[in-house]
Amino acid sequence: RTFAVQDRVSACLPACLPACLSACLPACLPACLPACLPAFTEHCRMTVTYTRRVADARLGTFSLLLLRWRGSIYKLLYRELFIFLGLYYALSATYRVILTEGQRRMFEKLVLYCNHYSGLIPVSFVLGFYVSVVVSRWWSQYESIPWPDRLSSLVSCHVQGADERGRLLRRTLVRYANMASVLILRSVSTAVYKRFPTMEHVVRAGRGRCSTDRTAAFFLQDSDLTNRAAPPSGFMSAEEHKKFKSLQSPHNKFWVPCVWFTSLAVQARREGRIDNDVVLQAILNELNTLRQCCGTLYSYDWISVPLVYTQVVTVAVYSFLLACLIGRQFLDPAQGYPDHDLDLYIPVFTLLQFFFYLGWLKISLLSVDEMYDNLPALERDLYW
Amino acid sequence: RTFAVQDRVSACLPACLPACLSACLPACLPACLPACLPAFTEHCRMTVTYTRRVADARLGTFSLLLLRWRGSIYKLLYRELFIFLGLYYALSATYRVILTEGQRRMFEKLVLYCNHYSGLIPVSFVLGFYVSVVVSRWWSQYESIPWPDRLSSLVSCHVQGADERGRLLRRTLVRYANMASVLILRSVSTAVYKRFPTMEHVVRAGRGRCSTDRTAAFFLQDSDLTNRAAPPSGFMSAEEHKKFKSLQSPHNKFWVPCVWFTSLAVQARREGRIDNDVVLQAILNELNTLRQCCGTLYSYDWISVPLVYTQVVTVAVYSFLLACLIGRQFLDPAQGYPDHDLDLYIPVFTLLQFFFYLGWLKISLLSVDEMYDNLPALERDLYW
Amino acid sequence: RTFAVQDRVSACLPACLPACLSACLPACLPACLPACLPAFTEHCRMTVTYTRRVADARLGTFSLLLLRWRGSIYKLLYRELFIFLGLYYALSATYRVILTEGQRRMFEKLVLYCNHYSGLIPVSFVLGFYVSVVVSRWWSQYESIPWPDRLSSLVSCHVQGADERGRLLRRTLVRYANMASVLILRSVSTAVYKRFPTMEHVVRAGRGRCSTDRTAAFFLQDSDLTNRAAPPSGFMSAEEHKKFKSLQSPHNKFWVPCVWFTSLAVQARREGRIDNDVVLQAILNELNTLRQCCGTLYSYDWISVPLVYTQVVTVAVYSFLLACLIGRQFLDPAQGYPDHDLDLYIPVFTLLQFFFYLGWLKISLLSVDEMYDNLPALERDLYW
Amino acid sequence: RTFAVQDRVSACLPACLPACLSACLPACLPACLPACLPAFTEHCRMTVTYTRRVADARLGTFSLLLLRWRGSIYKLLYRELFIFLGLYYALSATYRVILTEGQRRMFEKLVLYCNHYSGLIPVSFVLGFYVSVVVSRWWSQYESIPWPDRLSSLVSCHVQGADERGRLLRRTLVRYANMASVLILRSVSTAVYKRFPTMEHVVRAGRGRCSTDRTAAFFLQDSDLTNRAAPPSGFMSAEEHKKFKSLQSPHNKFWVPCVWFTSLAVQARREGRIDNDVVLQAILNELNTLRQCCGTLYSYDWISVPLVYTQVVTVAVYSFLLACLIGRQFLDPAQGYPDHDLDLYIPVFTLLQFFFYLGWLKISLLSVDEMYDNLPALERDLYW
Amino acid sequence: RTFAVQDRVSACLPACLPACLSACLPACLPACLPACLPAFTEHCRMTVTYTRRVADARLGTFSLLLLRWRGSIYKLLYRELFIFLGLYYALSATYRVILTEGQRRMFEKLVLYCNHYSGLIPVSFVLGFYVSVVVSRWWSQYESIPWPDRLSSLVSCHVQGADERGRLLRRTLVRYANMASVLILRSVSTAVYKRFPTMEHVVRAGRGRCSTDRTAAFFLQDSDLTNRAAPPSGFMSAEEHKKFKSLQSPHNKFWVPCVWFTSLAVQARREGRIDNDVVLQAILNELNTLRQCCGTLYSYDWISVPLVYTQVVTVAVYSFLLACLIGRQFLDPAQGYPDHDLDLYIPVFTLLQFFFYLGWLKISLLSVDEMYDNLPALERDLYW
Repeated sequence: RTFAVQDRVSACLPACLPACLSACLPACLPACLPACLPAFTEHCRMTVTYTRRVADARLGTFSLLLLRWRGSIYKLLYRELFIFLGLYYALSATYRVILTEGQRRMFEKLVLYCNHYSGLIPVSFVLGFYVSVVVSRWWSQYESIPWPDRLSSLVSCHVQGADERGRLLRRTLVRYANMASVLILRSVSTAVYKRFPTMEHVVRAGRGRCSTDRTAAFFLQDSDLTNRAAPPSGFMSAEEHKKFKSLQSPHNKFWVPCVWFTSLAVQARREGRIDNDVVLQAILNELNTLRQCCGTLYSYDWISVPLVYTQVVTVAVYSFLLACLIGRQFLDPAQGYPDHDLDLYIPVFTLLQFFFYLGWLKISLLSVDEMYDNLPALERDLYW
Repeated sequence: RTFAVQDRVSACLPACLPACLSACLPACLPACLPACLPAFTEHCRMTVTYTRRVADARLGTFSLLLLRWRGSIYKLLYRELFIFLGLYYALSATYRVILTEGQRRMFEKLVLYCNHYSGLIPVSFVLGFYVSVVVSRWWSQYESIPWPDRLSSLVSCHVQGADERGRLLRRTLVRYANMASVLILRSVSTAVYKRFPTMEHVVRAGRGRCSTDRTAAFFLQDSDLTNRAAPPSGFMSAEEHKKFKSLQSPHNKFWVPCVWFTSLAVQARREGRIDNDVVLQAILNELNTLRQCCGTLYSYDWISVPLVYTQVVTVAVYSFLLACLIGRQFLDPAQGYPDHDLDLYIPVFTLLQFFFYLGWLKISLLSVDEMYDNLPALERDLYW
Repeated sequence: RTFAVQDRVSACLPACLPACLSACLPACLPACLPACLPAFTEHCRMTVTYTRRVADARLGTFSLLLLRWRGSIYKLLYRELFIFLGLYYALSATYRVILTEGQRRMFEKLVLYCNHYSGLIPVSFVLGFYVSVVVSRWWSQYESIPWPDRLSSLVSCHVQGADERGRLLRRTLVRYANMASVLILRSVSTAVYKRFPTMEHVVRAGRGRCSTDRTAAFFLQDSDLTNRAAPPSGFMSAEEHKKFKSLQSPHNKFWVPCVWFTSLAVQARREGRIDNDVVLQAILNELNTLRQCCGTLYSYDWISVPLVYTQVVTVAVYSFLLACLIGRQFLDPAQGYPDHDLDLYIPVFTLLQFFFYLGWLKISLLSVDEMYDNLPALERDLYW
Repeated sequence: RTFAVQDRVSACLPACLPACLSACLPACLPACLPACLPAFTEHCRMTVTYTRRVADARLGTFSLLLLRWRGSIYKLLYRELFIFLGLYYALSATYRVILTEGQRRMFEKLVLYCNHYSGLIPVSFVLGFYVSVVVSRWWSQYESIPWPDRLSSLVSCHVQGADERGRLLRRTLVRYANMASVLILRSVSTAVYKRFPTMEHVVRAGRGRCSTDRTAAFFLQDSDLTNRAAPPSGFMSAEEHKKFKSLQSPHNKFWVPCVWFTSLAVQARREGRIDNDVVLQAILNELNTLRQCCGTLYSYDWISVPLVYTQVVTVAVYSFLLACLIGRQFLDPAQGYPDHDLDLYIPVFTLLQFFFYLGWLKISLLSVDEMYDNLPALERDLYW
Repeated sequence: RTFAVQDRVSACLPACLPACLSACLPACLPACLPACLPAFTEHCRMTVTYTRRVADARLGTFSLLLLRWRGSIYKLLYRELFIFLGLYYALSATYRVILTEGQRRMFEKLVLYCNHYSGLIPVSFVLGFYVSVVVSRWWSQYESIPWPDRLSSLVSCHVQGADERGRLLRRTLVRYANMASVLILRSVSTAVYKRFPTMEHVVRAGRGRCSTDRTAAFFLQDSDLTNRAAPPSGFMSAEEHKKFKSLQSPHNKFWVPCVWFTSLAVQARREGRIDNDVVLQAILNELNTLRQCCGTLYSYDWISVPLVYTQVVTVAVYSFLLACLIGRQFLDPAQGYPDHDLDLYIPVFTLLQFFFYLGWLKISLLSVDEMYDNLPALERDLYW
């Protein structure tokens, strides 16, 4: 029900990833990224439509965009808004109805005090800095997603042999690369984690054959692939799992499949399946790039924005709103306070400020759980 | 009639692209980017002229630049301006003519209230952040346009053979690379999409011979090329199209031609058309770069600026303008309100603010449809 | 007399460029970049001196730097300043002398109104954004200038043969690379354009021998070079020019020499002048880098900062100055307007604002024609 | 007890580092980075939890995050806060109790003066710049941490030979690379420095066998490794230490092991352990990348943010707080000073400003010693 | 006595540079960078200490850091401060003592006028932009310092031969690379320039043997090196100098040694000292990287921040301080001007502003001559 900050990352896993994954590895395909498919199909539809709307945005139609509910700022904030309004009117009613004359004068002084000093809270300064840090961080994270397609295209080109052994080599190599991705994405993204809650799921993934073998066959130009028996394992064979488990480490072990990949590649070179060292070097280079992406993702997950920042920003915004709650009350115009000539009942401008500052804070916290709350239930995806 | 955000991208497709494309591939040339030619010739003329104007900008001449209509801020905003002014004067007339004395006092209080509190809306803070995000995003997008020229120069160098087969290999390789570009650009740019509304257009493109074969011949130093028969297909042969369609995927399949490219390159290496693995490696490297560009473009298209930002910015600007509409009314000087000594009828400074904030919002939304509205009709371009 | 925005680019062409160009190509040397020599010698002298001044800037001497006329803000603005002051005093005289008592009161109200609302124009916000966009753009442009030295050092190393044919190969290869630079710089920089107003000049360039052959000989370690006859052509032979013209394209054809370069390099490889494909690959790589630089320069030239930005900024600054013209008039102290107790005649602080805002606008427009107005006349440069 | 700025760097040493280090080099493993293990396990737990909390942050639960003590802003500031409050109330008491009537009027004037002019101190401008400089600097530093895994994977692939000599070669090569890392990290990070206070510790490290040999065996696919005798030395043999010491230099000598690495790699190539120059070139390339990282770290350590910046920022913040101490006193409402109608005793908004500005200053100084003060005592880590 | 902006660059030459330089080239070592050694040892000591101080900065000790004199803001500004205070009190005395009653009223009006309008000078906006431009520029410059260690490690690996000729080749190659560095650093950094005021110094450098030969011997694993005779020349042999001089160019000729390097490397390849083209290619690649660094440094030196910026910033800051000088005078409280109730004699807040703005301007001008004024006299360094 609740999705982590990293959801956005996983929700953004590119559309062609599953396809690329399927390139040379029907066996390992069924599992992995597909878990995010429903999420990002969803995401896709939303944003693409939105872009089109902006494009069409002439005088009239653009307002429709402002009125969209789903994924909108209104949906993000309506709960907080109701609480805010509730408190505001409670205070207002207290002031108008309950308080005695003397208490009203006191309250009015408090209102003026809060209104005057709320300007001292440097909300926009603090918020601006925080948002720009968080947004650039998020984009870097997105850019670090390990795409396996460069590697798999190299593997499918250069690891030769049309026989069973050759095919197995190619598949296993790419499977290792994907395994590293899955391991890191599991620890980074809630969506992927929900698809593979335990290592068992990684092992069992894709036991059942699925329609994507046709995709794979297409890629491998391997016409008789579809007639084969189901591949015996998912992302990880049982033996590999045992080996994997036997290695104790307090940290994520995403680098283990990379080590396996390297060993296997060298073995393939020795068997002559890979022609020469230039090619082997190119493959290992790509693997290293992929490994670096994984490492970067991991360290982004590891080193959050310092808690102190988050606290400063949150305290700033909430204390500002609290000050507004009191300071923006309409006072009795008869008392003649400056700038309090009018009693409008609805504090329009205060609500706008509420929207801007709290909306930005929410985006920047990226605790966009409400936004993604109504993700479709995880269906059996194409590659389940 | 309406152009998407991505138009700017497509409108910026570089001038030499068509020529590079034509380098080794007369067959596939006729289609593709040329669709954007009218668009960017247009664009070209405009901006280049403009640059010259700035250069010449001495005291007198520069003002001419400010008065340009086409592509100007005035054209961008004149409709909104009329609406704004209409509402402003309607309110003004109501205040001066219709309202009773008591209502006027009320209205004056409302005006003072709006004027005072409109300063609370952090327009420039919110707008500044949004604009800088959108502009840097746009430039990155531009930088990700896949240029085929590096790849095609490698292919024309290293894939040997002056015979028919050699020529076919070179052409098909570059055709695949271009096909990937066309597929991704179709999904990203409205201009290209209008040129190729269906996959049929991609297939049929360039059936008729055109004058650019001379260009191609020039590139290939292939003097007898012009005497050949028309190449049978456009960007995609009918068979390829069948294969392409048979692969089901919920996502853009721009990577399919890349897979074909790789297979064909390996085959060429095996036939000895490519001398050695160093060269093959270099070609595949370039392909991967191109593929990465396509992927980046795709993910930019996919992951829009979050809707919440857009809504916050738009609401901020529009509510600010609304507040100005009321708050900047000229009041009866006789009432002696501070800063309301003068009744000018024309709210000059409010109009300036209107220009600045709404103009920036419009640019940042990049819904520059009005700007490009009068694009020349799509003529039969050079390569139709 | 008037220099374009791009002048700064051309004015910054690095000092060692001519020398590098001369490395292996005495024949084509005489032309090209040298056209900018006077410009950048000039530029050089100015800025270097200036840097030294800052370094020496102790309490006393630094003020001298502030008083420099040449290339200074005073020179940039003195004309506008006179106009501004003229209008200011004209208004002032009207107010003090011509107007009747009633009109004065009216005028005073107008002054207070303008003074109060001129604060609403977000000059520094708009200007700050524009300046930072323009400055970073300018620096990127500078970084994209194609330096031929990496390429020419590779060519001189790896294309073997001390005979006439070998020398010709090396020269022609580098000549092609330089030709691409010249073609793109001609379209981008006014200074280079003035050196080569027509393609004829590119062809004819360097017909006369010049003293730089000694430089070239030095580079090529080719002692008898100086005894050779004058090379027959400039940057482009007549035949090449014919071929070049025969290729119709609405766009800059800077990529044509690159295609020629590639063909020639492959031919050299086939003749065995280039030892192996690793080396050929390295040379083509460098060529591609150079081509990319050219392409980037071209697209910077092509895609200006949108006209709308420039208009918004200019309108903002000029309307602000206009508002100041009225709003900063000294009023009759006897009337007792707040902050108008003093009649100083000289609006010092308004002039300072005038300096800051208009100065920054001027810099950002980079219409630095006045600054470079007194460039030395184009003398016959070293390589004419 | 006190940790340097660089602690953050060392605290962030990635989790997989020890494992990667252990890849091919059981011998040298025991020492090095593990020293930071307790630190970063700690850090890890903190931040990961925090991220989860944000993700779960619905209306209610998020407030818990704000109330966390450990690593929070409250803990960072509580001491300063008590001092500030102490001084504030001391002043307040003096004003209310001790001063005579005349002195009170004087004090009130002082308060108004301080309050008015404290706005002149450009705290947020100065602080914003400083923080952004320091934060981007810190992230670059983190990105420069030398990861040995790319290098060690290449070494384990390409340096052949299953015999003792082969294994020794691989181990020694990676040991040299790690030695360079240790030497630079020792000088940069207090945590690592505490683990290796003298060069003796570097030499002696890992004399005792430990459980990680199993890890190493796993990596090397070297089943009988665990049955071997303990490797004789730590990171540096006694002889190497002697050589190392004999080289006098006023600077960090992290480059010495790199030179040894190069020599050994060339020797391995000559012995035929490394097949060809392509591979050797790739290994040396990776070593150079690692060396560059070390160099960058060193120069970051070397070139601090100029002292002048730090002084300006600190003086600005502290003088602002001092001015607040006086200027935000509650005055006798009876005197009728504007904005002093209310006597609240607790200066809420002043305390908020105190939090924001001093909190940010503290973060930016990164003198986060209090935060990390309760690091677990350095336990015997896995690799002690 | 006066050090240029570039001093900071040269003062930052990394500590390991001399050592790296000494790697393979005892002959040319004695000269070059060492000139900066005193400078950067000094710099080193200062900043490192400072970092430690921050780390230790608990409540009490941190204040010590604020009180440091050396390299502090106080030292940077004390002269200007005295002048400012002198003028301030002169004015103040004039106002209090000399002026007649009527003149005082006049002066008071002037003070109020200056105080009010000084807020119009956009100091922080202008200063913020300028500082961020200058600081990022300075860091890029630092990052462009050509480090010879990557190149020299390649050369020492791949240029074979233990005989005299082999050693000479290696040394000469690295000497050429260093010569390029020296030539460019001489023109860019005052410190290096003072070490090598004429080309004669470059030629003569290092004639005397020095203790670093032991360092070099260590690097080359060349045990009998120390028994050799002194190498005959410094950075440049007399013949090379003649050749160098004979090449006329109005610009820095740092690229000449690079050309020599290339020629010599190709010659070594032909002699078989370099095994194959892959290796040669790698060496030339590194040389090109180094050459690019030199070029970047040169163009940074060449293209200063435009004078207009500097003038705008300086005028803004100084005119603001001038306005403060008048506008912040304490007025007779008896006159009852608002915010002038108190006569404090010492304008604390004005002095703080003075510190902040002038301090930042000073840093940004980097005319830190006063800071580095007391550099130790250039001692005979290790390699003199």
